[in-house]
Amino acid sequence: MQTDTLPREDEETALPQVRDEEGSLNGAYLAAVSEAIETSNAERLRVLIGDLHESDLGDVLQALSREEREALIALMGGDFDWTALTEVDETVRDEILETIPNTAIAEAVRELDSDDAIGILEDLADEDREEILAALPLAERIKLERSFDYPEESAGRRMTTRFIAVPPFWTVGQTIDFLREDDRLPDDFTEVFVVDPRFCFLGTVSLDRLLRTKRPVRIEEIMGEVTHSVSATDDQEEVARLFERYNLLSVGVVDESDRLVGVITIDDIVDVIEEEADEDIKRLAGVGDEELTDTFVSAVRSRFIWLLLNLGTALLASAVIGLFDGTISQMVALAVLMPIVASMGGNAGTQTMTVAVRALATRDIETINPIRFISREALVGLANGVLFAIIIGVVASLWFSSTQLGGIIAVAMIINMVAAGLAGILIPLALEKAGADPAIASSVFVTTVTDVVGFFAFLGLAAWWFAIS
Amino acid sequence: MQTDTLPREDEETALPQVRDEEGSLNGAYLAAVSEAIETSNAERLRVLIGDLHESDLGDVLQALSREEREALIALMGGDFDWTALTEVDETVRDEILETIPNTAIAEAVRELDSDDAIGILEDLADEDREEILAALPLAERIKLERSFDYPEESAGRRMTTRFIAVPPFWTVGQTIDFLREDDRLPDDFTEVFVVDPRFCFLGTVSLDRLLRTKRPVRIEEIMGEVTHSVSATDDQEEVARLFERYNLLSVGVVDESDRLVGVITIDDIVDVIEEEADEDIKRLAGVGDEELTDTFVSAVRSRFIWLLLNLGTALLASAVIGLFDGTISQMVALAVLMPIVASMGGNAGTQTMTVAVRALATRDIETINPIRFISREALVGLANGVLFAIIIGVVASLWFSSTQLGGIIAVAMIINMVAAGLAGILIPLALEKAGADPAIASSVFVTTVTDVVGFFAFLGLAAWWFAIS
Repeated sequence: MQTDTLPREDEETALPQVRDEEGSLNGAYLAAVSEAIETSNAERLRVLIGDLHESDLGDVLQALSREEREALIALMGGDFDWTALTEVDETVRDEILETIPNTAIAEAVRELDSDDAIGILEDLADEDREEILAALPLAERIKLERSFDYPEESAGRRMTTRFIAVPPFWTVGQTIDFLREDDRLPDDFTEVFVVDPRFCFLGTVSLDRLLRTKRPVRIEEIMGEVTHSVSATDDQEEVARLFERYNLLSVGVVDESDRLVGVITIDDIVDVIEEEADEDIKRLAGVGDEELTDTFVSAVRSRFIWLLLNLGTALLASAVIGLFDGTISQMVALAVLMPIVASMGGNAGTQTMTVAVRALATRDIETINPIRFISREALVGLANGVLFAIIIGVVASLWFSSTQLGGIIAVAMIINMVAAGLAGILIPLALEKAGADPAIASSVFVTTVTDVVGFFAFLGLAAWWFAIS
Repeated sequence: MQTDTLPREDEETALPQVRDEEGSLNGAYLAAVSEAIETSNAERLRVLIGDLHESDLGDVLQALSREEREALIALMGGDFDWTALTEVDETVRDEILETIPNTAIAEAVRELDSDDAIGILEDLADEDREEILAALPLAERIKLERSFDYPEESAGRRMTTRFIAVPPFWTVGQTIDFLREDDRLPDDFTEVFVVDPRFCFLGTVSLDRLLRTKRPVRIEEIMGEVTHSVSATDDQEEVARLFERYNLLSVGVVDESDRLVGVITIDDIVDVIEEEADEDIKRLAGVGDEELTDTFVSAVRSRFIWLLLNLGTALLASAVIGLFDGTISQMVALAVLMPIVASMGGNAGTQTMTVAVRALATRDIETINPIRFISREALVGLANGVLFAIIIGVVASLWFSSTQLGGIIAVAMIINMVAAGLAGILIPLALEKAGADPAIASSVFVTTVTDVVGFFAFLGLAAWWFAIS
């Protein structure tokens, strides 16, 4: 939907552009906003940010310091567009909400769509949320409280409760007249929902269908059957898959008695898809849901736990090395070469694991026979294992003038690369089966396997070879 | 948009459900399809897959073997829905297209929307593509050839050239009548585009606006200004950012003389967002654009290059260890402990790098002062470095009954964790600045830094300490 809310360059008032050609926030514009805040020039600030799209305002808030944000909201007063809070990182939102009295938040929430209101209230402490809800008019409070009854990240939390519902016996003409006359309708919509008197969800009519049909035709004649509907308790990721798979623009949400209680639109789903991919990538690296704006303390804390787990893995690997300290003191070259076997296994395991975790997340894996996938990964590991065994075997033989050492590291390389391929696919599959998130736990397990197998194979083979020769 | 193309359970013909409750393809359904193919039962096949949504058909194709796919397409003949090819992985699409004569592909392409046709023709060899284009009617050929003039992954490749354009002086009534009577319009649309006689892009009218306005009102009075338009040469990722930022449903694409040449819709952008996140996550792990369906050979080849790069890194690290072989032979405990320092640095560096790469990809980084980000990462590295220095210092002292060794590893840990934090942020920023993709190259460089610094700091400190004590 095209909007016309971006302020344009204006000769008279010399407003700087909000964004530069690449779409980044314009430094001169940000400087002007900061200056208006510093000089408490509310009028100038209103000119600068009054008409901003919520997304631009969100980016501006994110770029300002904590104190500037507070001052900006105070200066804007009732003209502040609270939907911008749905566009900033959680940390920034929390910082802003902390400084605002609950009564003012309640005032702001009243003007928001239900899904935006939930986005803002969701992360607040229970007592704050209850205080804010209590300050709302009864009808709104009940509607929001019902949404909070649904689990976090469910369809019920993402849906808007403002949508257009008409009975099946209306004509196209009646429906169009209703749309023309009622000005309490949602701002943008692409579909009209058809319900029976009990509000059971019967079907949908897209706006283009409505426009292209003659006025006397009855809605039930042109209505599309409900083939994609979502239960309010469904997980938002499942809903996102549905949108992606069938190119939907919106979908009706029904409660346990099949009554239409809300609508989820594609713009909310775009955010879910982005968030979800972001979560996968960050979980694989052990930075959880960390955002750029997270505070120093929370970044240290969230990363510490992951690093502690990895310390456990590293100590286990060291213990394996410790088993062979006698062998190493006989031949220091082993210490020089051993990280190579472990590191190549770690990288190969990460490759397989990443393909597996993404295939699980996007459900691509369902179209593939798992046995085919597992055997392919073992074979890929074997093939690259043999190739790198040859390379490292030659390098090690020349470096330390010992074909024995070259042979030992070559065999260890093959063993570890096959182990890496198998661990990379079997561990995510097993975690998924056990109901755990493969993205969050796979890499610790995979690294443990490749480190332990790598050091054990290489040093163990060397010890055995020296014992028998 | 709700569609009614999913076959439902039918008592009489006993059709199995296409998908189970979790949305996965149903095994019984797939078995029925395979059986119909094996027995060359075209009628049964038509019943089973004739009405499938393109996305479901794509998943079915992906789940079948190569031979089954070929037989299915042959059995379906003219009833095969070619749009399904846009829903399968590139490898599967290529395998299918290889077996079909170019004249048959040309026949199929004629029935597709331009963006779908491009999606199918894009990956073909140049000579095949030209042969297919030559077999098309002139008007279609010119339209497709023009799209191919735009760079890969540009807006011009993603746009559809079927859209609704009206002059600004038409009334709402005239427009609605036009929509009602012309049956050559696109299937689904959410906006009407307004152009002048030279086809210059003037503005848009959303369907809900059109529906809610009285018939005599002129289009120019209700049209939204063009604030978000895209040039045909713009990169698809930039277009995706625009959709995300402003919650758009479609956007007009203009050529260099500002003429409206196409429209990009949100369903294509959802795919771009998904692909892009997928690329980032896979590039970080060094598996490029690998898909689950890639053949054994292409998987081995694509991963080999990455592993070769990592072998270089590992050899560099070994060379550093080699510098201190004398020190190690004096004290084997150093060999036992040294992987811990390198591995903790590697993990900490990967954490920072992942946050940085995602922040660059989603443009979040633009709202943050880079100096603030860099100093935060250095501080986080220092803080976790001190914490883990204490832990590993105590462990090492107790394990090897040597507080000296504990002290040495503690100091090395702090040095490497700070180096990891700095490398994790500075390397992606530098790559971005140099015009390279930070996702594809960062992790090799970061690991090199953390391995080299880790081994050098730990072994170097030990060598120095033993030399002076």
